[in-house]
Amino acid sequence: MTEQEQIEALDRDDPLAAKRDEFVLPEHTVYLDGNSLGCLTIAARERAHEVVETQWGRDLIKSWNQHGWIDLPVRIGEKIARLIGAAPGQTICCDSTSVNLFKLLSVALQMQSERCIILSQKDNFPSDIYMAEGLRHLLGDNRVQLSLCEEDEIETAMHDKVAVLMLTQVNFRTGRLLNMQRLTERAHALGILVIWDLAHSAGVLPVELDACRVDFAVGCGYKYLNGGPGAPAFAYVAQRHLKHLHQPLSGWMGHSSPFQFDAYYTPAPDISQLLAGTPPVISMSVLDAALEVYRDIDTAQLRRKANALSELFRTLVQRSPELQDLQLVSPTLPQQRGAQLAYRHPQAYEICQALIAHRVIADFRAPDLLRVGFSPLPLRFIDISTSVTILTKIMRSESWRHPQFNSRSKVT
Amino acid sequence: MTEQEQIEALDRDDPLAAKRDEFVLPEHTVYLDGNSLGCLTIAARERAHEVVETQWGRDLIKSWNQHGWIDLPVRIGEKIARLIGAAPGQTICCDSTSVNLFKLLSVALQMQSERCIILSQKDNFPSDIYMAEGLRHLLGDNRVQLSLCEEDEIETAMHDKVAVLMLTQVNFRTGRLLNMQRLTERAHALGILVIWDLAHSAGVLPVELDACRVDFAVGCGYKYLNGGPGAPAFAYVAQRHLKHLHQPLSGWMGHSSPFQFDAYYTPAPDISQLLAGTPPVISMSVLDAALEVYRDIDTAQLRRKANALSELFRTLVQRSPELQDLQLVSPTLPQQRGAQLAYRHPQAYEICQALIAHRVIADFRAPDLLRVGFSPLPLRFIDISTSVTILTKIMRSESWRHPQFNSRSKVT
Repeated sequence: MTEQEQIEALDRDDPLAAKRDEFVLPEHTVYLDGNSLGCLTIAARERAHEVVETQWGRDLIKSWNQHGWIDLPVRIGEKIARLIGAAPGQTICCDSTSVNLFKLLSVALQMQSERCIILSQKDNFPSDIYMAEGLRHLLGDNRVQLSLCEEDEIETAMHDKVAVLMLTQVNFRTGRLLNMQRLTERAHALGILVIWDLAHSAGVLPVELDACRVDFAVGCGYKYLNGGPGAPAFAYVAQRHLKHLHQPLSGWMGHSSPFQFDAYYTPAPDISQLLAGTPPVISMSVLDAALEVYRDIDTAQLRRKANALSELFRTLVQRSPELQDLQLVSPTLPQQRGAQLAYRHPQAYEICQALIAHRVIADFRAPDLLRVGFSPLPLRFIDISTSVTILTKIMRSESWRHPQFNSRSKVT
Repeated sequence: MTEQEQIEALDRDDPLAAKRDEFVLPEHTVYLDGNSLGCLTIAARERAHEVVETQWGRDLIKSWNQHGWIDLPVRIGEKIARLIGAAPGQTICCDSTSVNLFKLLSVALQMQSERCIILSQKDNFPSDIYMAEGLRHLLGDNRVQLSLCEEDEIETAMHDKVAVLMLTQVNFRTGRLLNMQRLTERAHALGILVIWDLAHSAGVLPVELDACRVDFAVGCGYKYLNGGPGAPAFAYVAQRHLKHLHQPLSGWMGHSSPFQFDAYYTPAPDISQLLAGTPPVISMSVLDAALEVYRDIDTAQLRRKANALSELFRTLVQRSPELQDLQLVSPTLPQQRGAQLAYRHPQAYEICQALIAHRVIADFRAPDLLRVGFSPLPLRFIDISTSVTILTKIMRSESWRHPQFNSRSKVT
């Protein structure tokens, strides 16, 4: 078999191959940015049409009951729960990842009245750190301290004055996968509560929140979950903590009886207490439909294919003489990373722009990283070899030096 | 002229009559609930299609620049600014009304380091009070106290220990309109900062935030602004306060350079600092398009027509012998209320259900209020007389006593 035939065989033998047909994909494009914004599914497109035209346009206010708008946050939460190892009743869809993190950081600190340190890693997703800073700004340095350590030193940085360990399971730049079980166990042994951000892990690898006895988690609806741009996020609270829950963004949707319009707040006695204001129903409905693609598959299957895709990319890059200036900053072993690879290159920005001009959509992370993501359902193995072929041509011809690829835009 | 002819003449002479054609309205229905969920416009329907199919589906991640997703919060903010008397640079679209209130309450309290009382009225929209309670729960009773007064006693309840006066301009139950200018002046004279909730006033009556020297405001995108179910909300910060702004939900979108991925938070030096996480682009795009209906009209025109509609309804009800059991709880004078009327009746719930069954969509507010809203752009005068005719038939026949109208559902 030629290499081309071998790659075609991978697609032929792929048990998830048919899932690609559930997506609406741009033509003649290899999309390696599903870790930044997932692709549109047919089900999501249809639901968008239905929620706007029929539910809103025709049935208007009646849709809160008639089309189950009021239940969307819990219903979506339960669909996501399946993908993150959470038994029912602990997961809900609402607000943004950042806002949900604020709620759960507040709750965790309240539960730790004798401790005030939030420990995270320096290279955590910046918004996560910014939210902790915001809470510190609000509560004061006496009540919140922020301690940031290197990724390799998380275990040794834990001690019995730390209140909360806040980590992202898969690093947004390098793709490095942290050991959730080990770090959670170590934290608990020291009386530390843990909050995991699953932005780059939910929907692409097995996450076992219950089995790891995680306390709290948040995650994002618009990456591997394909919920659409800025899709609502989700939050998880372990069953054992629900009875202590009193989150500060106590809007009417988290009240035990929102439509009683009581004068005072009585928190809902379950996960729906995490709701604040009225949810963005259109965006939420689209996410609900997008999750249908996961109905009959499990995260182990997703993990196998994502690993095979990223390994194919890594191997092809490694073998190409033209690509030796691209320095892999992700772990070499697939079990140590999520579904992405990042390469360092001084001209990463220009290379990324040249790829996009050739219809290979990757992304750039300042100052010098080229990041490629491997969303396992829409991508074929042949797409991987196509993208590396194009990358090789760009690097060989140095076409990325063209001035058109040289002006940095606002969002990259 | 017969009464019917007089009403037809009102529609014929209505300078806003053509605006109805910009809406997609349910057939054979009189929708008196635009104050709860506004109607779909043609522009919003088209934008929903475009943002899903073309922008997300085809252009994917590139749309953040190419289709201006990144600018949506500010662009929408400026469209709303025109409707609320705000000069540019002070209004932004983001999150929910409740979450925005939390941000602004926090900011206002930080600016008032010697004061800790949040004053509001007992019958404010519950979620507003709940958010203040949430902040008190988080910061403690030493730092936040909540004082609730009767609507008629707001002026006398103010004193020089009050930090923040938090009011909703139009009461969600009664529709009573508060005097923004007078209450704001009185508050400022006592060193109190004011936060106005414009949920039931933005897009339906003239609001003059700058002229009244209001400090902060929030409001809702899905009522008179017709932004769709759970549409993102907005927030206003007076120019003079922007330099002191440091809001606690400090997510990456409010950073001065979000895509630099800095390790620490540096607040944007302008209104965009109010952004937290990634905005729900689909819901936000729909709101952006919905606001187009306001491009060539001003709030005085909206006010005139809304008043004329509500006065017609009130007068027809008053004249109908069958409707004397409906007790008006809204102010009788249109200049003292927003664009809604509320009637008390022990069987308000059942009457509301019977109306809905006859395709007159009103809403019920526990325990005993029938609420009707007069969204001036989609409604005709003939719709008002139709709805009162149907209400009269229902009350005359007592058909609301039928068991089918008697089981209270979850959302009403």
